[in-house]
Amino acid sequence: MAFSSNAAADHHLRQELAENQFTISNIKLQRLNHLTDYLPDLQIHSNPLDQNPFFHPVSEFYITPSDVILRHILHDLSGAFPSPGPYLEYHRAGPRKQIYFDSCHVRAAIVTCGGLCPGMNTVIRELVVGLWELYGVHEIFGIRAGYRGFYSIEPVPLNPKTVDGWHRKGGTVLETSRGGFDLHKIVNAIKDRGFNQVYIIGGDGAMRGMVEIFNEIKHRKLKIAVAGIPKTVDNDVGIIDRSFGFQTAVEMAQQAISAAHIEAESAVNGIGLVKLMGRSTGHITLHATLSSRDVDCCLIPENKFYLEGKGGLFEFLDNRLKDNGHAVVVVAEGAGQDIIPRTESLVQEKDESGNPVFLDVGGWLKSELKKWWDRDHPKDLFTVKYIDPTYMIRAVPANATDSLYCTIVAHSAIHGAMAGYTGFVSGPINGNYAYIPVEEVARAKNPVNTRDHKWAWVRSITNQPDFG
Amino acid sequence: MAFSSNAAADHHLRQELAENQFTISNIKLQRLNHLTDYLPDLQIHSNPLDQNPFFHPVSEFYITPSDVILRHILHDLSGAFPSPGPYLEYHRAGPRKQIYFDSCHVRAAIVTCGGLCPGMNTVIRELVVGLWELYGVHEIFGIRAGYRGFYSIEPVPLNPKTVDGWHRKGGTVLETSRGGFDLHKIVNAIKDRGFNQVYIIGGDGAMRGMVEIFNEIKHRKLKIAVAGIPKTVDNDVGIIDRSFGFQTAVEMAQQAISAAHIEAESAVNGIGLVKLMGRSTGHITLHATLSSRDVDCCLIPENKFYLEGKGGLFEFLDNRLKDNGHAVVVVAEGAGQDIIPRTESLVQEKDESGNPVFLDVGGWLKSELKKWWDRDHPKDLFTVKYIDPTYMIRAVPANATDSLYCTIVAHSAIHGAMAGYTGFVSGPINGNYAYIPVEEVARAKNPVNTRDHKWAWVRSITNQPDFG
Amino acid sequence: MAFSSNAAADHHLRQELAENQFTISNIKLQRLNHLTDYLPDLQIHSNPLDQNPFFHPVSEFYITPSDVILRHILHDLSGAFPSPGPYLEYHRAGPRKQIYFDSCHVRAAIVTCGGLCPGMNTVIRELVVGLWELYGVHEIFGIRAGYRGFYSIEPVPLNPKTVDGWHRKGGTVLETSRGGFDLHKIVNAIKDRGFNQVYIIGGDGAMRGMVEIFNEIKHRKLKIAVAGIPKTVDNDVGIIDRSFGFQTAVEMAQQAISAAHIEAESAVNGIGLVKLMGRSTGHITLHATLSSRDVDCCLIPENKFYLEGKGGLFEFLDNRLKDNGHAVVVVAEGAGQDIIPRTESLVQEKDESGNPVFLDVGGWLKSELKKWWDRDHPKDLFTVKYIDPTYMIRAVPANATDSLYCTIVAHSAIHGAMAGYTGFVSGPINGNYAYIPVEEVARAKNPVNTRDHKWAWVRSITNQPDFG
Amino acid sequence: MAFSSNAAADHHLRQELAENQFTISNIKLQRLNHLTDYLPDLQIHSNPLDQNPFFHPVSEFYITPSDVILRHILHDLSGAFPSPGPYLEYHRAGPRKQIYFDSCHVRAAIVTCGGLCPGMNTVIRELVVGLWELYGVHEIFGIRAGYRGFYSIEPVPLNPKTVDGWHRKGGTVLETSRGGFDLHKIVNAIKDRGFNQVYIIGGDGAMRGMVEIFNEIKHRKLKIAVAGIPKTVDNDVGIIDRSFGFQTAVEMAQQAISAAHIEAESAVNGIGLVKLMGRSTGHITLHATLSSRDVDCCLIPENKFYLEGKGGLFEFLDNRLKDNGHAVVVVAEGAGQDIIPRTESLVQEKDESGNPVFLDVGGWLKSELKKWWDRDHPKDLFTVKYIDPTYMIRAVPANATDSLYCTIVAHSAIHGAMAGYTGFVSGPINGNYAYIPVEEVARAKNPVNTRDHKWAWVRSITNQPDFG
Repeated sequence: MAFSSNAAADHHLRQELAENQFTISNIKLQRLNHLTDYLPDLQIHSNPLDQNPFFHPVSEFYITPSDVILRHILHDLSGAFPSPGPYLEYHRAGPRKQIYFDSCHVRAAIVTCGGLCPGMNTVIRELVVGLWELYGVHEIFGIRAGYRGFYSIEPVPLNPKTVDGWHRKGGTVLETSRGGFDLHKIVNAIKDRGFNQVYIIGGDGAMRGMVEIFNEIKHRKLKIAVAGIPKTVDNDVGIIDRSFGFQTAVEMAQQAISAAHIEAESAVNGIGLVKLMGRSTGHITLHATLSSRDVDCCLIPENKFYLEGKGGLFEFLDNRLKDNGHAVVVVAEGAGQDIIPRTESLVQEKDESGNPVFLDVGGWLKSELKKWWDRDHPKDLFTVKYIDPTYMIRAVPANATDSLYCTIVAHSAIHGAMAGYTGFVSGPINGNYAYIPVEEVARAKNPVNTRDHKWAWVRSITNQPDFG
Repeated sequence: MAFSSNAAADHHLRQELAENQFTISNIKLQRLNHLTDYLPDLQIHSNPLDQNPFFHPVSEFYITPSDVILRHILHDLSGAFPSPGPYLEYHRAGPRKQIYFDSCHVRAAIVTCGGLCPGMNTVIRELVVGLWELYGVHEIFGIRAGYRGFYSIEPVPLNPKTVDGWHRKGGTVLETSRGGFDLHKIVNAIKDRGFNQVYIIGGDGAMRGMVEIFNEIKHRKLKIAVAGIPKTVDNDVGIIDRSFGFQTAVEMAQQAISAAHIEAESAVNGIGLVKLMGRSTGHITLHATLSSRDVDCCLIPENKFYLEGKGGLFEFLDNRLKDNGHAVVVVAEGAGQDIIPRTESLVQEKDESGNPVFLDVGGWLKSELKKWWDRDHPKDLFTVKYIDPTYMIRAVPANATDSLYCTIVAHSAIHGAMAGYTGFVSGPINGNYAYIPVEEVARAKNPVNTRDHKWAWVRSITNQPDFG
Repeated sequence: MAFSSNAAADHHLRQELAENQFTISNIKLQRLNHLTDYLPDLQIHSNPLDQNPFFHPVSEFYITPSDVILRHILHDLSGAFPSPGPYLEYHRAGPRKQIYFDSCHVRAAIVTCGGLCPGMNTVIRELVVGLWELYGVHEIFGIRAGYRGFYSIEPVPLNPKTVDGWHRKGGTVLETSRGGFDLHKIVNAIKDRGFNQVYIIGGDGAMRGMVEIFNEIKHRKLKIAVAGIPKTVDNDVGIIDRSFGFQTAVEMAQQAISAAHIEAESAVNGIGLVKLMGRSTGHITLHATLSSRDVDCCLIPENKFYLEGKGGLFEFLDNRLKDNGHAVVVVAEGAGQDIIPRTESLVQEKDESGNPVFLDVGGWLKSELKKWWDRDHPKDLFTVKYIDPTYMIRAVPANATDSLYCTIVAHSAIHGAMAGYTGFVSGPINGNYAYIPVEEVARAKNPVNTRDHKWAWVRSITNQPDFG
Repeated sequence: MAFSSNAAADHHLRQELAENQFTISNIKLQRLNHLTDYLPDLQIHSNPLDQNPFFHPVSEFYITPSDVILRHILHDLSGAFPSPGPYLEYHRAGPRKQIYFDSCHVRAAIVTCGGLCPGMNTVIRELVVGLWELYGVHEIFGIRAGYRGFYSIEPVPLNPKTVDGWHRKGGTVLETSRGGFDLHKIVNAIKDRGFNQVYIIGGDGAMRGMVEIFNEIKHRKLKIAVAGIPKTVDNDVGIIDRSFGFQTAVEMAQQAISAAHIEAESAVNGIGLVKLMGRSTGHITLHATLSSRDVDCCLIPENKFYLEGKGGLFEFLDNRLKDNGHAVVVVAEGAGQDIIPRTESLVQEKDESGNPVFLDVGGWLKSELKKWWDRDHPKDLFTVKYIDPTYMIRAVPANATDSLYCTIVAHSAIHGAMAGYTGFVSGPINGNYAYIPVEEVARAKNPVNTRDHKWAWVRSITNQPDFG
């Protein structure tokens, strides 16, 4: 059956679109915090890059405040275009001719907060090497053990020799921890130790802390630039394209899925169950599923699921075992939190970063699957092999793709801080590195869009129910 | 020394930019070839996706001809803004409600041309699985051994079972070859065998061939959609963000660089020399250098170099060996072609794809380095260890990042062809998948920009001369 | 302080030893079961290898019944030598000129039992390819899902094409299961299906089952050769040097230990805890510890440990955390079974292979460590990261070392069965492949010797207490 | 056709063998050099291991001079048994109660000579950590750049902190070189610098040098123990089971063979050609072939081959390409040296270690294959992809199997030197570590036995001609 009438309309629309000329109005530049906002008398210093033969000391080399990246790039040219907007542009990352620090007087602190993520050591190393080699900054310190390290542990002096080879090591040599955020102790320590550039590598909790630190520093009118580098292996930070370590994590997750697949295939009615990282978002689970092609069911926080009854997980697995003899289920750690029985004592529990304690969806699912089978198929063989590869995934060094990201994001942060920007993070927007106000990043979420093609493809590949 | 006057101006500029509102005019949509351009009476068919429970059969799921991506997203908001333009937008990739093929009558052909690249088998597999599962197309054929296979070898029927597991294999199960392009034989064969969708996975040579095939098919007014997927491990195709397999190649190159580094470090005056892929562009070399951090000198086609005299390679290496005792040099295969002595017979030589035969810069450099040392330091130990990892890099399967790319780019091509688009390729623009006229891609080049920050960082990291 | 008197004696002893000539008496050949033991009228058939140009058809190529390997090769030449013995020799594995099967009438069955182990598929593949290529056997069947498959599932015909590429896959394509051992059903099925060579790849449970099968077949006087290939990733089988997959498992375990180390190092008072395979023996744990050099404490079943008090684990870790700030503990799954509180219901529990159900020493230790710290250091930060990589270790394909082992052990089994040997297993003794009566292997244990140098080295490397 | 007469004889022989008792006479202990051979008045010192709680200070822990390993363990029990012998036994490696050095006065030197091999750094590290931790030796020095380093470069002081993490690095941090052997300069330097223990890690050239050093030291009656650790990635040292790094090299070679296979498969008439290490022996090539199963032809120095005519390589490949469309050839670097045309100037060329310069069999074969095809099949497509992975194989760190070997062989060397043995090497014999006079090892060769089963299996697997 064909719709001849629409073909002409279709053709006409394409024709018309190709001939027209369009305009995007109501474009606004996202305002960036700057030291001169509250210290109007700051002076500009000469930029050591002017003397650096490796950076063409020509004006076009430098990024200016008017160099911007447009964030909203997907448009609908039909009648509704342009939507009222505003369309946001962001300052591009990169070296500025005008810098607001004298390299000889910069005293930089670097801290890592929260859980491990591939590439943390690479970011630290690149901050140290970049500050040292690009701007001749020689007073660089590592804050140990996360935020609490500012006020409770002696900082570690860092230089290019100290950090040599760190990029080949997983984890963070500076150590990390959750919690320990005490605003006044931290800002006092920053001030007392004479730090005037603070680089914070951390997740959403750390970014919210950074907002407070920045506000307090601004309130006290201190000449201290605060730059952030979002770290979240879950890739749940909004606005930026992706966070460092994410590609490495997806790569490593393949190994666990492949093992689960082999275990499932080698058994009679075998189920391979893998729990992957992802507290509020299923990005790793989704990408690992799409990359692997061995997954039969992919459970993520953005898509509620249920076990029993029509359209439930058990029915789906029953059919899959009947057809294939085995199945692989991948579940994000944040999935199913609403259906796991929660004993009263746990309801309010939070970890030291203030995040709610997550119930172990993997262990729970493993046990529910066994109970279901014993009830419904008591005479048949059945095996669930459960793999939790979390620490084996997040403790590896960054792969080449993430490694390059770490270099650029670290250098971007340095250029921004030297240029007097503060309360900002650096990160890629539409493939180009930009500066973003930390408040915006701390607020933004980046859930998996379960209405777009990637999710449809997952469901198409896995044939799993939508639990709708 | 501080420039107080500029600080105020700087502040003022930032302020002003943040308050203003901007407009981009002169936006043009890049026109895409469509079967109805020369077959105006084609009918629209019902879309099997409408019946697919995994794809929400709701209007917002489908991409329409007015869904576009803006390509030019880096702007300068200063006086010069907006530049006269035009600013180009491209059709977004994705499923269309209106399709111009009846699934039961689609007969698809898939061909791979040119050298190997990680992910080729994944693209083939995804084309087959996508056509079969998404649109119910069951007549899919692999053309063996490149373009010549159309008219000289029997096609191989493909289905999801045939291609099962191909994504775990490097190379191309369909086999590939250079050359063999005979326009009329190819178009005749396409027509005689009844193919009405042709998917071409190939490099710039194959894309130029595809332009001719598309034009001939259009000239003959045949209902045959021709879709391309740019394949170039060198990443030298323009317009698209990157090509599949590139990230995998950069990852694998680390292994060779690391070995060269170990060999150099373990010797007295040791030089590790690695030749990487990159005929006209140095992307792999550049990215591998930035990711590795073990490279002392990075030679790419975009940046001419010389050996002798002040600022030359020998002087640089002499100093590096004096300082460090060892050095690592990475050279793209297309570098130095202008300074390698060329015997007359070679001048005009071309390979079967019509590409000029490249002189072996690795072997030549190795020999020149030895001659130089024997001449200048006859009494000192010296070692050059030369590694050419080309085939070990390009013959591996795609890593997870590239694997996902392969899925999306293949499905995009399918959706485009089903929707009647032709003479197009699919690929990512600013992180989103789009359709691009093949003529434009076949023309576009993507050289390394030796004036931007990445190259400056390479030079800063390596301290190598600019040979300027 | 020197002991001059002994130096002379020492010298004298060495001198004397070097001049003497020694003799080993009381050497006995370990008797091997043979079909002619109960079928004395069996005929010898011509060996297809005589016609195989790749095997030199010369008499010295074949192994004869008098070709043996001495097992006891460590001697003490002092007064006590030779110990009364007997010293055992074993029949060497390899092709025999005299074979007791006509290739055209061989009907072989291959079964895999018990848990996964790297290399299972390689052994299956090599059995199939070896039978086919070496002896021209074309009736080869895979028994699915372990022992129960003999009588409950249709066997799968196998040939070199079917098994192509299986060596690149972990697990077992034939599927495996525990239990299902029903002697009479199995022997009846073997007989009814006409199998006359049965190859059993399995652990100690399967080997004990094989003893019963062999005895029953002997009792019934059937011409069926039964050959075993010991499979135990734990390496707990005695007499043979090591079992296949063990080296691969130790290799893979490095990854988990390395991740645990990174997690521990990146935390404040961080403990990385890894549970490795090893029900009754600690070989994987011991070898992984020695290979890794990142382990602070290695707990194995052969060496009891305790938590509290002087010389206990907690005291040791307390000191280690004070000194280093982090520690890595590796524990074999069978360690500590005597000190984990066991609820009554569990006391007698056995799995389907009849092995006692093991208590989860990893989960228990993790919880005890947390309780201990909360009790003794309630104010200090503390982290335990627990990794159980079991399925990620055992589901991988064999590495090159194990892969070669698989080939030789499979071919050895074939040669033995063709030569009429039965009730035997093949495996390496002192680096050479031999045939061993299955009863002997089923009985033998191979515990870690905690009085030898390897264990002393572990303790020396780790400085851990001996819990003595 | 069956040979009934022999079956009875066969049975009788087995019966008789099983009932008899055997004796091995004429066993001789291989004499080991000891400092007291020429310094009879040396005193015994107290052993720090007696105080080491990790080594049970009980008499049975120590190895005595009468603890030996029998080397000849394959016997023929038929009439010819025992062969006249003598059967050799070797001193077992391990700690001795009697030591001839006072730890406080030990001054140890470690040197690495020749080409790289996986595990060199591990051996160095284990020597340093072992000397320090086991015996409390604190004066340990690395000799840089091979033998010449003794007299021309300042030694590097080493301690457990210096060598931390070296086992994760390929190559040798001490640097290595060929040649530079000047007996008197070396022995003078050893003496002048006060070294009394010298550990030499090197190949057969270095072992021959070690014989001279030992003899000169003995001649001068110096109290200097000289211990060797054979290093040869080719595994061409006799007597010992295998050398360190060999298993790792075979593992890494799989990657190159796999790439060659993919390249060959993806082309029309594609040949993948891989050159592997192996100057005089084909062990790596043989083992890599057996482990890979992707190789069609395996060329080693022990088996001469030819190109043209019946039974030649070209004929074999012609057939293989006709049948399969592709082929993989693996060639050891020392193969074919007799048939590669040698220009006169090269005939006598030697490298700095005195080894003959090898002609590039890989490059030559590649070129000959192309010439052959152009001549015999001028119209058909043909591709040869040549991979030389040498430096990518030998520059990696040791895998777990080799890593453990490195630990034991290094500790064995230490125990031996402390016990006053000299002019010896440590290495595994029949799976147990022993001490072997260096003269014997320097002389012994370990060619591939082309008459045994492994080679027959290669030929059976590959179906290649025997070029006989």
